[in-house]
Amino acid sequence: MIEKLIEGIKKKNAPVVVGLDPMLGFVPGFIKEKAFQELGETLEGAGEAIWQYNRGLIDAVADIVPAVKPQIAMYEQFGLPGLAAYKKTVDYAKEKGLVVIGDVKRGDIGSTSAAYAAAHLGRVKIGDHAFPVFDEDFATVNPYLGTDGIKPFIDAARENGKGIFILVKTSNPSSGEFQDRKIDGRPLYEWVGEKVAEWGAFHMGSTYSYVGAVVGATYPEMGKVLRALMPKAYILVPGYGAQGGRGSDLVPFFNADGLGAIVNSSRGIIAAWQQEKYARFGEKAYADAARAAALDMIDDIRSAL
Amino acid sequence: MIEKLIEGIKKKNAPVVVGLDPMLGFVPGFIKEKAFQELGETLEGAGEAIWQYNRGLIDAVADIVPAVKPQIAMYEQFGLPGLAAYKKTVDYAKEKGLVVIGDVKRGDIGSTSAAYAAAHLGRVKIGDHAFPVFDEDFATVNPYLGTDGIKPFIDAARENGKGIFILVKTSNPSSGEFQDRKIDGRPLYEWVGEKVAEWGAFHMGSTYSYVGAVVGATYPEMGKVLRALMPKAYILVPGYGAQGGRGSDLVPFFNADGLGAIVNSSRGIIAAWQQEKYARFGEKAYADAARAAALDMIDDIRSAL
Repeated sequence: MIEKLIEGIKKKNAPVVVGLDPMLGFVPGFIKEKAFQELGETLEGAGEAIWQYNRGLIDAVADIVPAVKPQIAMYEQFGLPGLAAYKKTVDYAKEKGLVVIGDVKRGDIGSTSAAYAAAHLGRVKIGDHAFPVFDEDFATVNPYLGTDGIKPFIDAARENGKGIFILVKTSNPSSGEFQDRKIDGRPLYEWVGEKVAEWGAFHMGSTYSYVGAVVGATYPEMGKVLRALMPKAYILVPGYGAQGGRGSDLVPFFNADGLGAIVNSSRGIIAAWQQEKYARFGEKAYADAARAAALDMIDDIRSAL
Repeated sequence: MIEKLIEGIKKKNAPVVVGLDPMLGFVPGFIKEKAFQELGETLEGAGEAIWQYNRGLIDAVADIVPAVKPQIAMYEQFGLPGLAAYKKTVDYAKEKGLVVIGDVKRGDIGSTSAAYAAAHLGRVKIGDHAFPVFDEDFATVNPYLGTDGIKPFIDAARENGKGIFILVKTSNPSSGEFQDRKIDGRPLYEWVGEKVAEWGAFHMGSTYSYVGAVVGATYPEMGKVLRALMPKAYILVPGYGAQGGRGSDLVPFFNADGLGAIVNSSRGIIAAWQQEKYARFGEKAYADAARAAALDMIDDIRSAL
């Protein structure tokens, strides 16, 4: 799947992933009204609203970006109807040729991580059958539990032609609280990065590993160090736009081949219609606003690289 | 909710939580056959099988233990039907007076953690309404992202009378890979433990905080240090039984008041019918076997304390 991702990035000349984090406040009124009229102001109504919203977004960006990254928390908060919308979103994006990165940040011990890995990257065995479940192409994984929490995800990725991105240095303000603490003179995130490189070395596509890393755009200097430490790891870079990262901050995350990183923007794209800059589109054309914002982001990154 | 948990522990004289981690391999054949006959060897069939299995287990232990801890990964792997079984399990256990600890190990940045917190401890707002979603009493949380990943869970716990257990030192063999690394002379898990104590100090029940910690039974010496470092934190202790922890290992996790820890056993109880020791019960009486194993565990811990 890392090959498909790289191919998409090259073909569209866009190392960009659109984060599908559908907070209800981002969903245009006309979509919510219709969904609530049909299903009430209920979990079902909310699930329908975010699904319809996502469908419009996917249609609007599928030809210009290689991937989308639904954030499962935004669906899980609406319970089963929300998770049904998540699954529909994953399936629809794949139908449209997009690579789907499930931002699930799961991680547990051995057999439990194996169950999560089956849910998101593999298949679950029931009697004589094996079923794909949420079936994203990539999943994000939390490293706090160490190798035996990670390995089941790597195994599932290998067996199913999928991939993972392991949290190394997250984009949030307090990420340094533990991640930046020095161990033998080097911050924890470097030790985690070193492990990512080690795990990845045994799990390679043709040029990059399908074991990647998450490193926030908000920390470009750390990105530079981590880039060098994990030369074969694809880096998923959140924090562009709304969280403060700019195109020029992104250069250190890329390799000399122009590859090696894919930058996420969520609300900066999907809620563009609420920004003054894209207000001309109006609520009805929220998807066109998202497309315009995605094109602007692609330009910003292209000109920085 | 920490008060209700402590009250239950005292009343039943059992600092024990039964882990509801229903791997299909643990579910007796007669339950699976019935579910598969009705719904096929499908996700729906698996969801029905684990729900029926859990119901029997809950009925068998509700009067002798204060709490259950469903591990959501084991349900998530069966997709929406699995998560429907999770929700039914949470609701049924609460109906039976049990405290429910959702072992979800979620954790993300600000607004995303807030969505997870709404899903598991709070309510989600939809129009003029606010709905409880999975609505467990406690949730486990991963600390890797620091305070702004944790705070939304603490807020939701405070507002809704719930609680959390933050991963400090996990029970698995490779937990030391990052958690044991020394920072200024002290292992990472101690720094996380110190934060738990700090967060907890502002979020107290009458004697203990509703911000607790997870520390594996497999590391009793670390448990001793962490017990002293977090005197007001309730410690959720996994790793008893199948993972190698014994009653005598548990003493360091408790305070002098005999409180401060609750010990989890999952397969040691719920799959007791498959152990030689409880084979006399037979498959049909799997729930009686679970009850016997829970009583043995309670005795083991009582005599150790």
